[in-house]
Amino acid sequence: MSKNDSLVYVALGGAGEIGMNMYLYGYGPQAKRRWIMVDAGVAFPDMDSSPGVDLITADPEFITSRVHALEAIFITHAHEDHVGAIGRLWPQLKAPVYAREFTAEIARGKMEEAGVNPDEVKTVGAWPEQVEAGSFKVGFLPISHSVPESSALVIDTPAGRVVHTGDFKVDANPQVGEPFSPEAISDVSKDGVLALVCDSTNVFSKQAGRSESELVEPITALLRSQPGMVVATTFASNVARLRTLALAGKAAGRSIVVIGRAMHRMIGTARKVGLLTDFPDIVDVNDAANLPAENVMVLASGSQGERRAASAQLARGGYGKLSMKDGDTFLFSSKVIPGNEIGVAYIENQFAMLGVDVIGDEGGLYHVSGHANRPDLQTMHELVKPQFLIPMHGEYRHLREHAKLGAAGGLTPVIAPNGAMVELTGNEPKIVEMVETGRRYVDGSVMYGAMDGIVRDRLRMAMRGMLVVNIVFDENSDLVGDAWVEAKGLFANVDGNEASLQTELEKGVTQELERSKKRLRSDDEAVEKLVKQAASNRTNRMIGKKPEVIVMINRLEG
Amino acid sequence: MSKNDSLVYVALGGAGEIGMNMYLYGYGPQAKRRWIMVDAGVAFPDMDSSPGVDLITADPEFITSRVHALEAIFITHAHEDHVGAIGRLWPQLKAPVYAREFTAEIARGKMEEAGVNPDEVKTVGAWPEQVEAGSFKVGFLPISHSVPESSALVIDTPAGRVVHTGDFKVDANPQVGEPFSPEAISDVSKDGVLALVCDSTNVFSKQAGRSESELVEPITALLRSQPGMVVATTFASNVARLRTLALAGKAAGRSIVVIGRAMHRMIGTARKVGLLTDFPDIVDVNDAANLPAENVMVLASGSQGERRAASAQLARGGYGKLSMKDGDTFLFSSKVIPGNEIGVAYIENQFAMLGVDVIGDEGGLYHVSGHANRPDLQTMHELVKPQFLIPMHGEYRHLREHAKLGAAGGLTPVIAPNGAMVELTGNEPKIVEMVETGRRYVDGSVMYGAMDGIVRDRLRMAMRGMLVVNIVFDENSDLVGDAWVEAKGLFANVDGNEASLQTELEKGVTQELERSKKRLRSDDEAVEKLVKQAASNRTNRMIGKKPEVIVMINRLEG
Repeated sequence: MSKNDSLVYVALGGAGEIGMNMYLYGYGPQAKRRWIMVDAGVAFPDMDSSPGVDLITADPEFITSRVHALEAIFITHAHEDHVGAIGRLWPQLKAPVYAREFTAEIARGKMEEAGVNPDEVKTVGAWPEQVEAGSFKVGFLPISHSVPESSALVIDTPAGRVVHTGDFKVDANPQVGEPFSPEAISDVSKDGVLALVCDSTNVFSKQAGRSESELVEPITALLRSQPGMVVATTFASNVARLRTLALAGKAAGRSIVVIGRAMHRMIGTARKVGLLTDFPDIVDVNDAANLPAENVMVLASGSQGERRAASAQLARGGYGKLSMKDGDTFLFSSKVIPGNEIGVAYIENQFAMLGVDVIGDEGGLYHVSGHANRPDLQTMHELVKPQFLIPMHGEYRHLREHAKLGAAGGLTPVIAPNGAMVELTGNEPKIVEMVETGRRYVDGSVMYGAMDGIVRDRLRMAMRGMLVVNIVFDENSDLVGDAWVEAKGLFANVDGNEASLQTELEKGVTQELERSKKRLRSDDEAVEKLVKQAASNRTNRMIGKKPEVIVMINRLEG
Repeated sequence: MSKNDSLVYVALGGAGEIGMNMYLYGYGPQAKRRWIMVDAGVAFPDMDSSPGVDLITADPEFITSRVHALEAIFITHAHEDHVGAIGRLWPQLKAPVYAREFTAEIARGKMEEAGVNPDEVKTVGAWPEQVEAGSFKVGFLPISHSVPESSALVIDTPAGRVVHTGDFKVDANPQVGEPFSPEAISDVSKDGVLALVCDSTNVFSKQAGRSESELVEPITALLRSQPGMVVATTFASNVARLRTLALAGKAAGRSIVVIGRAMHRMIGTARKVGLLTDFPDIVDVNDAANLPAENVMVLASGSQGERRAASAQLARGGYGKLSMKDGDTFLFSSKVIPGNEIGVAYIENQFAMLGVDVIGDEGGLYHVSGHANRPDLQTMHELVKPQFLIPMHGEYRHLREHAKLGAAGGLTPVIAPNGAMVELTGNEPKIVEMVETGRRYVDGSVMYGAMDGIVRDRLRMAMRGMLVVNIVFDENSDLVGDAWVEAKGLFANVDGNEASLQTELEKGVTQELERSKKRLRSDDEAVEKLVKQAASNRTNRMIGKKPEVIVMINRLEG
């Protein structure tokens, strides 16, 4: 490498939240850096911050504004928070996408959904195969997680080697995908690793993580002991768990039913690429309705209580011809993602009303995490022995805790939240620049920025309610008739008349306009200000709210 | 009792959710029953279901429609979910309110806030004192919880005795309030109890509950070990915890600061009625800013991450002159109420950015629940040995589980969710009627029903965005000018022009109106329908959303 060249890392998403992962590595002289991107994931909206939004992605502006310098995109694994945005964002990125076979198939589906050519996604074999992308050489090192072909990336640059773990856990027997191989990690690390960029999700979990294989026996025993139908839910993309559940169901003598499109797609894609060869035959949901309940095991999507998902439909009464009843059992083989507790409790209560017993993870008996816990992170640190440690895939508190853990183990960590560009080619990792980052909202068929004001307006209407005031002026700026008010999301029946709020506001606004000077009335801006204030103050007096107000001023010509 | 008389129980709130408790007992012949109410609490709104709402209460319609037959209201303890609605609802209830001294003081505050005479709240001594209310005689039996003077109610009726536990835990040393007394409960039960109406909150917690007193040592040790300032948060109304934290702070040689109005009010009220006599002197927050950090212990409100509360203010930078920095510690001596996880994580991340270490309950080391766990409920069942068990204070799943637990112990339970009126004067508890229940929203200065459509409209505007279409017709129902469209909460910049959505919609709506028949145009309803459809379809085509549409039709007279 020449002395003006440097290697930098910057997260556009994923280092400040768990979700919407998007990482960049740049190499070259500052003005002429060439880039690769790792992952292009989504996050999920919520009513508190993003009502009406379908999906959230990291704002790729930093790289799209230098898109000519983007060499390639690498996808570590097939989870939504890593691959979910590739189709929507690709038209702005236009670089070749590389992934292993299963991940590539899922990515191609995302491309097709977004109307993009799926052939832009290239299939790559596992390490030691490498993809050349400008100065970078990137290999997919198999690592254990909860979805097939999850990979750490071994990123070779003229400045040295970076190991980007992706999501991982330490699991010698992960049920799908390759086992965790300390030897393989030691081997890629033996000549020295410049930086370990490492998953931080479970840094607060103090016990070593447990293997997916530990679930097989307890779940099988549970399925054998239940007198009726058992429906189990987990993340649709947790392919390992789908297999664990299905094989347990088979071992317990039950027919396997799968409900929910996302689950069918995951299982179908895995089989298409030659994985999940031992997955039992799937029985159609409507056929299953005719089988004895005790012979049925259903895998249902919707572990987070999503209203439209299969689990919620069952809780409300049924899915297709299938319904649950007293004596049946519903198993959450999953954890609740923070923010989804109320949705999950809702379906638990619905099931309770049906007489269905709901079983949770029972302190880990029926669920294990897909991420490395604190001692597992230490294992990774010790295997790689990197010069620098960059915690990723976490909220700020996770990054900070992971950095402390690394420092305690003798590593040199750097906390690099979204936007913090870290130069890796000095004696110390150094934040050299803060680049602008943000969120983009996928909403219907368009995308826009989180700060564009659209969602802010929605939240205001939701919190404050809405008034529309319609006014007609004649050519002399005199009122034609009274002001006309429509209210939405406001209590209008103040004194027992259904629209007394409107009536009072119409009277008040009309009066104030009549009393105002003609010069004011001829000025749209001044009228709007007066009307907004008059309407807002009166609403506040009557019902204690200050609503959003839209004023429609009609002026007739002479 | 005469043979036409019966005793009934019905929950209007609290038996279908944890919150907004409101229970009724009725006695007499069906057509002439006289009633007492137990508790009048609130629940808290959330963006998912109740944006813009301040507080939620149970709908008291069933009792307000027979308010002449309401003898009295009894408040078991001073928590918001039991006392919070008494002021707002009293004008519709107009019955005397009875509570023990501390609870009565808090209730009087609620009355004053709502502009109601606080003298309607009468102070009652502890059992064996009884209040006569028609056929009912009600006594306040001290029971351990987390707030002073918490009481179970001993309700004597001609049909027999009912024990209504209120919120309780089994704690021999609860730090504030009276210890749990098995003897006292056995004693009131020795002549037979018809029904035990019992807290179900923690029925899924398998281990026996732990005493508040167990926290004193670990919290003191923690405070001694921290090098900087320690700020601890808990529920403002958890008076027991406030005392535990303050005494631990004092033992660790720290000055005690209290920030947050709700906490000051609770501590002040307790002292006013002669409680918390050993609470250390409180140092003013601005004075504390001048003390060495290691000598300061702050109690801050906002354990649920509430944006405006003291804890969130500290996380964002400071409260008054007080701010936290690297080396300081923030302690959550609390649990997260489901639904508040994201708000809590937000302040944890803010603190992490300040370099402040955040400590959670550490598996119970720094927090214990105020409610009876599963084995404690069994203890209560065995002490009371009631003829019937009615689980209350829980979601449906808690009620069901509590009923199963009671049945397993040989009791006769009945699951009575909100609205299920249970007759207690037969051989079996029998649901004799379902009365209408619901929620009322306190919003600004008014109250309205959850089903009144107001909040539904807010949610629709938030999810879909909003269009206002303004049209002017002349006396012949011909358009004067073009339709005029305003959009809010919608992406309008479709083709790079800032308002291209509006422009397109104006063009489209105008065209469709011009093409329509005059007869249609002279009919407001038909115009509204056409315009809504035209605007909605075009919006859907352009941005993939179907917005809410308000149509303002102006008709000029000849």
